Amino acid sequence: LTFDAIFVPDALRDAVSDRAWVQAMLDAERALAVAEARAGVIPEGSAAAIADACRVERFDVEGIVAAGRAVANPAEPLVRALRETVGGTAADHVHWGATSQDVVDTAAMLVARRAATVVLDELAGVAEGCAALAARYRATPLAGRTLLQHAVPTTFGLKAAGWLVAVLESGRRLSELRSRRLAAQLGGAAGTLAWLGDRGPQVLRAYAEELELAEPELPWHANRVRIAELGAALDVAAGVLAKIALDVALLSQSEVGEVAERSAGGSSTMPQKQNPVGSTVASACARLAHAHASVLLAGLPQEHERGVGGWQSEWTALSGALALTGGAAAAMREVVAGLEVDAGRMRRNLEATGGGILAERVTRLLAERIGRREAHALVAAASIRAAEAGRPLRDELLADPRVDLGPEELEEVFEPTGYLGSAETFVDRALELYRRTTEEGG
Amino acid sequence: LTFDAIFVPDALRDAVSDRAWVQAMLDAERALAVAEARAGVIPEGSAAAIADACRVERFDVEGIVAAGRAVANPAEPLVRALRETVGGTAADHVHWGATSQDVVDTAAMLVARRAATVVLDELAGVAEGCAALAARYRATPLAGRTLLQHAVPTTFGLKAAGWLVAVLESGRRLSELRSRRLAAQLGGAAGTLAWLGDRGPQVLRAYAEELELAEPELPWHANRVRIAELGAALDVAAGVLAKIALDVALLSQSEVGEVAERSAGGSSTMPQKQNPVGSTVASACARLAHAHASVLLAGLPQEHERGVGGWQSEWTALSGALALTGGAAAAMREVVAGLEVDAGRMRRNLEATGGGILAERVTRLLAERIGRREAHALVAAASIRAAEAGRPLRDELLADPRVDLGPEELEEVFEPTGYLGSAETFVDRALELYRRTTEEGG
Amino acid sequence: LTFDAIFVPDALRDAVSDRAWVQAMLDAERALAVAEARAGVIPEGSAAAIADACRVERFDVEGIVAAGRAVANPAEPLVRALRETVGGTAADHVHWGATSQDVVDTAAMLVARRAATVVLDELAGVAEGCAALAARYRATPLAGRTLLQHAVPTTFGLKAAGWLVAVLESGRRLSELRSRRLAAQLGGAAGTLAWLGDRGPQVLRAYAEELELAEPELPWHANRVRIAELGAALDVAAGVLAKIALDVALLSQSEVGEVAERSAGGSSTMPQKQNPVGSTVASACARLAHAHASVLLAGLPQEHERGVGGWQSEWTALSGALALTGGAAAAMREVVAGLEVDAGRMRRNLEATGGGILAERVTRLLAERIGRREAHALVAAASIRAAEAGRPLRDELLADPRVDLGPEELEEVFEPTGYLGSAETFVDRALELYRRTTEEGG
Amino acid sequence: LTFDAIFVPDALRDAVSDRAWVQAMLDAERALAVAEARAGVIPEGSAAAIADACRVERFDVEGIVAAGRAVANPAEPLVRALRETVGGTAADHVHWGATSQDVVDTAAMLVARRAATVVLDELAGVAEGCAALAARYRATPLAGRTLLQHAVPTTFGLKAAGWLVAVLESGRRLSELRSRRLAAQLGGAAGTLAWLGDRGPQVLRAYAEELELAEPELPWHANRVRIAELGAALDVAAGVLAKIALDVALLSQSEVGEVAERSAGGSSTMPQKQNPVGSTVASACARLAHAHASVLLAGLPQEHERGVGGWQSEWTALSGALALTGGAAAAMREVVAGLEVDAGRMRRNLEATGGGILAERVTRLLAERIGRREAHALVAAASIRAAEAGRPLRDELLADPRVDLGPEELEEVFEPTGYLGSAETFVDRALELYRRTTEEGG
Repeated sequence: LTFDAIFVPDALRDAVSDRAWVQAMLDAERALAVAEARAGVIPEGSAAAIADACRVERFDVEGIVAAGRAVANPAEPLVRALRETVGGTAADHVHWGATSQDVVDTAAMLVARRAATVVLDELAGVAEGCAALAARYRATPLAGRTLLQHAVPTTFGLKAAGWLVAVLESGRRLSELRSRRLAAQLGGAAGTLAWLGDRGPQVLRAYAEELELAEPELPWHANRVRIAELGAALDVAAGVLAKIALDVALLSQSEVGEVAERSAGGSSTMPQKQNPVGSTVASACARLAHAHASVLLAGLPQEHERGVGGWQSEWTALSGALALTGGAAAAMREVVAGLEVDAGRMRRNLEATGGGILAERVTRLLAERIGRREAHALVAAASIRAAEAGRPLRDELLADPRVDLGPEELEEVFEPTGYLGSAETFVDRALELYRRTTEEGG
Repeated sequence: LTFDAIFVPDALRDAVSDRAWVQAMLDAERALAVAEARAGVIPEGSAAAIADACRVERFDVEGIVAAGRAVANPAEPLVRALRETVGGTAADHVHWGATSQDVVDTAAMLVARRAATVVLDELAGVAEGCAALAARYRATPLAGRTLLQHAVPTTFGLKAAGWLVAVLESGRRLSELRSRRLAAQLGGAAGTLAWLGDRGPQVLRAYAEELELAEPELPWHANRVRIAELGAALDVAAGVLAKIALDVALLSQSEVGEVAERSAGGSSTMPQKQNPVGSTVASACARLAHAHASVLLAGLPQEHERGVGGWQSEWTALSGALALTGGAAAAMREVVAGLEVDAGRMRRNLEATGGGILAERVTRLLAERIGRREAHALVAAASIRAAEAGRPLRDELLADPRVDLGPEELEEVFEPTGYLGSAETFVDRALELYRRTTEEGG
Repeated sequence: LTFDAIFVPDALRDAVSDRAWVQAMLDAERALAVAEARAGVIPEGSAAAIADACRVERFDVEGIVAAGRAVANPAEPLVRALRETVGGTAADHVHWGATSQDVVDTAAMLVARRAATVVLDELAGVAEGCAALAARYRATPLAGRTLLQHAVPTTFGLKAAGWLVAVLESGRRLSELRSRRLAAQLGGAAGTLAWLGDRGPQVLRAYAEELELAEPELPWHANRVRIAELGAALDVAAGVLAKIALDVALLSQSEVGEVAERSAGGSSTMPQKQNPVGSTVASACARLAHAHASVLLAGLPQEHERGVGGWQSEWTALSGALALTGGAAAAMREVVAGLEVDAGRMRRNLEATGGGILAERVTRLLAERIGRREAHALVAAASIRAAEAGRPLRDELLADPRVDLGPEELEEVFEPTGYLGSAETFVDRALELYRRTTEEGG
Repeated sequence: LTFDAIFVPDALRDAVSDRAWVQAMLDAERALAVAEARAGVIPEGSAAAIADACRVERFDVEGIVAAGRAVANPAEPLVRALRETVGGTAADHVHWGATSQDVVDTAAMLVARRAATVVLDELAGVAEGCAALAARYRATPLAGRTLLQHAVPTTFGLKAAGWLVAVLESGRRLSELRSRRLAAQLGGAAGTLAWLGDRGPQVLRAYAEELELAEPELPWHANRVRIAELGAALDVAAGVLAKIALDVALLSQSEVGEVAERSAGGSSTMPQKQNPVGSTVASACARLAHAHASVLLAGLPQEHERGVGGWQSEWTALSGALALTGGAAAAMREVVAGLEVDAGRMRRNLEATGGGILAERVTRLLAERIGRREAHALVAAASIRAAEAGRPLRDELLADPRVDLGPEELEEVFEPTGYLGSAETFVDRALELYRRTTEEGG
C-alpha cells in the first residue's frame, strides 16, 4: 500500500505483514509436527525440536521471501531454512508429508483469524458508536433524502439505526466465517496425504485441533470457496462502512452542516477547512478492499490440484482485503464515536424548503377531502410555484381556495415531528437487535 | 445478453425478464393491499379490487418500462397504470403509503427467490452428477496435477469429490440466503412509514407474511447488504462451476483425453473437433456473473435514504448474476451428467512420465535408507537425467548403485494404485456430506 | 438488461441486438465471398449468390442463436443456414476458408463501429452542452468544493469546462480506436489461413477493404488487445459521464439547489420531488458499463489459438459496454443541454459561510503583513470561532486587533469575484480545445 | 503486497515506495519554487533555499506519512516539514499558491513516469524474446489449438509472433501515454490558481517545463482521465503478459511438454517437478494488476473539485498497477528469453492424433471430388471411428472406398508442414512490425 500508514492501523499492518505470514507458516509446521508425533508418525523428540525452532525471530524473513521468487512460493525456502535450524535427524521430520500449499493455506487461515479478530473488534466499535447515536438522537428530526432530494422527515436516530443494522449484518457473517469456516489445510502433494500412508485422516484431525481450526471434509487445495467467502464478507463489511462514510461526508457538506467529524482535517492552504478525513480514509479503503476481494472471487477457477497464478494471487488479495476493511472500520469507529451532531441545523434544513418536505403529508390530508389524484396534482403544482417564486409551500397552499385548511391546521401539518411515522419504533427494534447480538457475542 | 439463448436456459431468462419483474411488482402491490385491508388501513373492497388487477397480462409491460425512463424507475408508471386498471375509489388505495423503492425492492426479492430456486435446482443436479462420478471412480487412478505438472497420483473419484464439496458449500450459502435473508421492503417515502401513522409495523408484518418473505428489523432502502450478499453467493457458485469447467476442459485436451463431454461440439470447418462446449458456456457465464455480482458488491455505499445510480444499477446486475450463474449451472449439470471418462487413458497418462509421478514415493522409501536430503537430491538428479534422456525414471534409478532396490521392489513402488493415500477415504467423506446435505434439503 | 428501456435509447439497443450481430456476421460472410471472388479463389457467381443471401431478414435469428448453444457459438448454425439459403454449388463456397471466430470477431468490429458511432455522437452532444455552459457561465461564481467542503470560489463556467475537457479526452480515444483499431479478422481454423493456400494475405486484404476495416498484421484470434482497448475506452467515457452526473446530482441537492435538470423526475408519492433522473440513469449505466468493460479487460489471457470461455464472454460484455456507455451519454446530453442554472443561489451559497470561503485570500493578504504562519493560525482560529458562534468570519476578523484592515478593505477581500484567479482564462483554453477538436472531427 | 519480493523486482518496488513518492512530491515543490522564481512570483533566494531542501534523505518519510492520517493526505505534513527544513523567510514561499493535490498528483505523474520506464523496458525485453522465438521457430510446426483441442497445424514462430504483436500493441499505448499524457498538476485550492493572481498560467507553464511534464489545458483535479487511462494501459499490458504465461503453462504441461521454463521451479516434496514458476508469478501479478487498475477506472466519478475517497484510493492503486505489471513483465522477460522449446515433442504431439489435426485438409481435398458437405460428413464419421478405436484417421480413410486417395497421397496430405498456409508470411509481418517499432522507439 502506498502511504499505508494513512489508511491502515499498525495492528492490522502487523497482522498481515510478511513476518506475520511467516510466523503463521511456522505455526502450521509446528502443529504438523506435534500432530504427527501424537499420531506416532514421527518421534516425539523430532516434534519437540521442530516446535522449538518454529519462532519467526529465528529466521531471515526477507531472505526467505526473496528466495521464494525461484519457486513462486515462500514455503519451500522456509522449509529449507527450518530444516537447517532444526538440524539433526529431526530435520528430516520437518514438513513431513506436507506440501507448500498446506503450509501457506493454513497460514492464510491463521492470518485471517488474527486479522479478522481485529476487524471484528473495530466493527464492534462502529456498531457501539452507531447504537449510541441511534439511542441519543432517536427522535431528533432531520430531512430524509432520496436521490439527494428532501423526501419526508426522518430522525437522525433512525439513520444511525440503519447504519447499525448494516454493520451488525456484515459483522455477523464475518464472525460466522471466522468461527466455522477457517479450516486447516493438509493434503500433501496432491490432496491424498499419500506420504502418511493410512494415517492421513488421523494426522489431519490432530493438526486441525492443534491449530484450533476446523477440520475440513477434504483437503481444499483446489476448492477456494473458503477464501472467496472471506473476500466477499470483507467486501460487504467495507461497503457498509463506505455507506456510513458517504452519509457522513454528505451531511458534513458546507451547505448541509448537520454533522462534523470531531477530528476533521485541516488544509495546507485553506484555514477554514474542516474536512471529513475519517470518512475519506474509509471510503478509499473500501474501494481498495473491494478490488482485493474481487481477486479472491475471480480466483475460484483454479487448475486441477493447484492453480497456476490464481492461488498465488490470493496472498496479497487476502491481506489487502483484511487490512483495508480493518482500516475502514478503524476510521469509521473514530468518526462515529466522535461525531458532532447539530440538531439545530437539522431543524433549519428541514424548514429550509418552506414545508416542501411535508408535501406528502399535506397531500394525504387533502386526499381525504378532495381525492388523492386531485390532491397530488394540486400540491405538485403548488410546489412548483413555491420553488419558482422562492416562497414557502405553505403560503402557496393558503392562497389556494381548494385548500380548506386554516393557518393553525397548516402549521400543525407542517411540523416535521408530527410526521415521523414509526421512526422511533424502528430505532428501538435496531437497538434490540444490537442488544441481542452483543449478548450472543459476549 | 448478446446471444442469450446460447448461455441461459429459457426458464431463467423468463424468471428475470421485464415481465417477471413487473409481475413481481404487482405481487408486491397486491400483498400490500391485502395486508392493509387486514390491518384495517384500507377497505376490504379496495384490496379485493387491487388484488384482482395485479396480473401482468393486464398491463403493457413494454410501455410501462419505457415510461420509467422519465422517472428513472419502473414503479411510478406501473402504479399509474394499476390505478387506472383498478379504477373507482379503490384506485386511491393502490400503493397506499408505499414508495417506488418498496415495490421494486420487494420485487427484486421475489425475482431472486424464483430464479434462485431454479439455480439451486441446477446446482443440485451438478452435485448429483459429481457424487455419481465420485462414487463410480472412487478408486480410479489418474495423475494429480499441480501448477499443471504431474505431482502424485490421485483418483478421479477424489477429483469429483472435490468438485462436489465445493458445489455443496456454494449451494448451502445460496440456499441459506434464499430462506433467511430475502425480506420484504416497506418503508414509505424515506423509511419511516409515516403515511401509515402508527400502523406501519403491523402492515409491514402482514405484508411480509403475505409474501412469505422475512420481516426485516428496519426498512432496508439504504442498507443493501441483502443484495450484496446475494451477489456474492451467486458469484461464488459461478466460480465453483467455472472451476469444474476448467478441469473438464483441461482433461479434455487432445493431449490429455481423459474425459470428454458427451455433447461435445463440432466445428464449422474441422470435422475431427470435439469441443468442450458445455464447459465453455459455463466459463463464459461465470465471467459475466462475476461482473454483475461486482456491481452489487460495489453498490453498497448508497446516498442517505435512497441512492442516485447505485440502487438503479442493481436490477440488471441482480438479474444478470442470477441468470448467468444459473446458465453456468445448467451447462455443467449436463456436462457432469454425461461426462465420458477414459480410465485407460488416465492410466496411460500416469505411466507416460516413466514413473516420474512416483518420485515422491521412491524418495520416501529411499529416505529411510540414506536419509531424506540425500534421497531427495538423488531422485531429483535422476529425474532430470530421465527427462533429458527420455528414459523412465525407474531405469535411471536402477542404474544408480546407491539405490538398493530390486526390480520387483521398484515395480511395486512405481505402481500408482499403491500410492493413493487417503483418496478413497476422502471420497467417502464427501459422499457422506452429500448424503447429509440432501437429507437436510429434502 | 432489466428494464433496458429505462437505460438505453432504442438506437443503441438495436445496434447491439442479436439481429444486429447476425446482420454483421452476414456482412462478414458477404465480404469474404466478394474478396475471394476478387482474388480468384471462388467463382464470381458464387460470390454473387452469397452476397445476395446475406440479408438478416432471410434468417430465423432466434432459431440460429438457440442452435448455437450446442456449439457455444452462433456462427456455426448461421453458416449452415446460409448454405441452405444460398443452395447449389455456391453453397459450398460459403464461409470458404474461414472459421467461426473469423465471422464473430469481424461482426464484433462492425457492431462496435456502428454502436460507437452512436456513442460518439451522444458524447459530442454532451461536449456541445458543456461548451455552451462553459461559455455562458464563464464568470459566474460559485463555491469550489473539495472533499465536499467549501474551498475557494470558482466559476460555473470553469466547472463545465472541466467536464468538457474530460468528455473531449475520452471521446478522442474512442474515436481513435474506432478509426484505427477496428480490424477485420480472418485466420481460418487456427490463424494460418491454410485453407486458402498461398492466397491468404491477398484475401485478407481484400476482405478488410471490402469491410472498410483495418487490415491486421496478423489474425488476432488470440490477441484480444483490440477488444480490451475498446472496453477500456468505453469505461473511461462512462466514468467521465458519471463524474458529470455526480456533480449535477450534488449541485441539485435540496440544500445546494444551484442547478436542476429540466426534466427532473417526479415521485410516486412526494409531489414536491424534483429528482435528478438523467444523472441517476447515467450513473447506473456507468456502473454497469464498468462491469462489462472489466470482463473485456480480464479476458485478455485466452488459451492458445482460441479461448475456452474468455472469447465467448466478450459478446455480451462488448454489447453491454457500448450500449450502457451510450445510455449514459444520451442521458447526460439531455441533462447538460437542459440544465437550469441558478446563479443567484450560487451567490447565496458562496456567502452562506460568512466569508469562510475567502479565508485563503485573507490569509494571503495578512501574510504580507504578519507572516504566513501567523496569518494562517490567526485565520484558522477565527474560522473556528466564527463557525462555533455562527458568526461571519469577517466579523471575527474585524474584532481581532492584529488584523489592521478596515471594513472597506475587508469588504473587498470578501468579494468572491475578486478571487477567481485564472478561472476565465482556463475556460477560454477549454473552449479553444473544443473548437480545435470539433474542427478536426469535422 | 504480501511476499512482494516474490512478485516484483527491487527496482519497481523502489520506484513506487513511499520514499519514491515523497521524493517525487519534493521534486514538485522544488519545480514550483523554481518556476515561481522564474515568473517573479517569489524571490530567487527562496527558490534556491527550497530547491536545496527538496531531498528525501533530509526527511522522516515514515513520520510524515503517519502524520498524514490526520488529514487524509501526505502532502500537508510534508509541506510543514519542508517549511521547517527550509526555515527563514523562504519557508513562507514553500508550496506557494499550491494545494496538497497539486503536489500529490504531480508526484503521481513522476512516479508513473519512472516506473513506466521500467515497465516499458521489461516489455521491450519480452518483445525481444518473442521476436527471437518467432524468427527461430518461424517454420517449426506444432498443433494449433482452439478450445484446447487440436485444430490444424501452425508454427511455434507464429505463436510467438502473436505474443509479439500483442506486446508491441500494449507497449505502444503505454509509451504514448508516458510521453504525451503525463501532465503537471497545478490548480491551487480549487483549480483557479487564485493565489497567484494573474500569473497562474505563466507559473503553470514554467512548472510543467521544469518537470518535463505536459502542460494541461486545465488543472485536472477532478478530471481523472489521465489516471484511468494509465490504469487501463497497464491492465492491458498485464493481460497480454498473462496470455503468454497461460500459453507457456499450457505448453509446459506434463502431457504436452513442448516448452519448459529454463528456471523451472522445484517442489518442496516432489523431486521430479519442473514448475512454470515465471508464468505463475506473471499470472498472479496480472490478476492483482487488473484489480488495481479497476480501482482507477472505477474512480473517475469524483466529487466537485476534489474527491472524497476516490482520489485517495488512487495512490495505492496506481503504484500497484505499475509494480505488478512490471512484475509480470520481468517474469515473462526471463521466461521468454530462456524458453526451452522441444520441436521434437511438438512434432510427436502433432502426430499423436493419427492425422486428426489434418482432417480439415483432407476434407478440403475430398471436397473437390465428392462435394464439400459429403466430404465433411465422411471425415467427421471417420474421425469418430478413429477416436473410438484408437486408430489413426489415415487408416480409417484408407479403409473407406469413397476415398480414392492412394497411400502416398494420403501420406502427403497428412504431413503437417504441408498445411501451414501463411504462417511464415505472418511471422515476417510481425517481425517487420517489430523492426519498425524498435526503430521508432530508438
